[in-house]
Amino acid sequence: MLNIVLVEPEIPNNTGNIGRLCVGTESRLHLIHPFGFVINDKNLKRSGLDYWVHLDVTEYDTVDEWVQQIPDLSRVFLMSSRATKSYLETEFQDGDWLVFGKESVGLSTDVLNRFENHLTIPMSKLIRSFNIANSVAFVVGEAKRQIGLKKV
Amino acid sequence: MLNIVLVEPEIPNNTGNIGRLCVGTESRLHLIHPFGFVINDKNLKRSGLDYWVHLDVTEYDTVDEWVQQIPDLSRVFLMSSRATKSYLETEFQDGDWLVFGKESVGLSTDVLNRFENHLTIPMSKLIRSFNIANSVAFVVGEAKRQIGLKKV
Repeated sequence: MLNIVLVEPEIPNNTGNIGRLCVGTESRLHLIHPFGFVINDKNLKRSGLDYWVHLDVTEYDTVDEWVQQIPDLSRVFLMSSRATKSYLETEFQDGDWLVFGKESVGLSTDVLNRFENHLTIPMSKLIRSFNIANSVAFVVGEAKRQIGLKKV
Repeated sequence: MLNIVLVEPEIPNNTGNIGRLCVGTESRLHLIHPFGFVINDKNLKRSGLDYWVHLDVTEYDTVDEWVQQIPDLSRVFLMSSRATKSYLETEFQDGDWLVFGKESVGLSTDVLNRFENHLTIPMSKLIRSFNIANSVAFVVGEAKRQIGLKKV
């Protein structure tokens, strides 16, 4: 089971889509406050997020609170458009932590400095970034592919 | 260069995200009418789709019009949640056509019956489908990975 981490997500529709990705790929979702929206029954219902009840989701008040319960920090992978190593050059394992920053500016320098593994998704210079939910799909798709091959 | 085809897309935000995916992965986008929205300068500007000018996009009035200009129908891959073969069991080539149906009901029986290659994205039974832009990301990510390996 993979762990998807969103640090300070800003746009509810993106977090909703990533929740659906997590349920569909049997991944755990970890959300670090503050958010740019409120998660409550009314908002989930209005957004048609009927799968949210199936989601294994944990919220944290701070990055520190999240970091403290990670068993092996070497299995944390930070996604950053400034990284030089591609997610396609990485060997993923079951239980890995895939970390995505806020939509507007990505991960902060403070968070980037805490971990060694920084990965990028190769893309044309004509865009600044992919949509965050699509970025999650790229990386989770590849990690699930690799983990599936190991099980065969 | 991959060809992404959306048959009768309904939700503008999804087509916008897929346009960004196409620019970022240097793929061509093909849109088959009718759409659930209008593409014009005013709507593109309002949606912040400033990358749309870089997009290689072709619109078709009908499925027939699109089919007539495909050089090799065996390189067309239809995405369907009812297919039994996974996109991970497929060998993609540069120039392949990856076809996605409308958000509400997927591809019609008429379109499905025109082509042999039907692929699915494995997912938990707890969701009915992935978001269409995330589905495109899964398949384009895998196709680009395979094509990149052949170039090495």
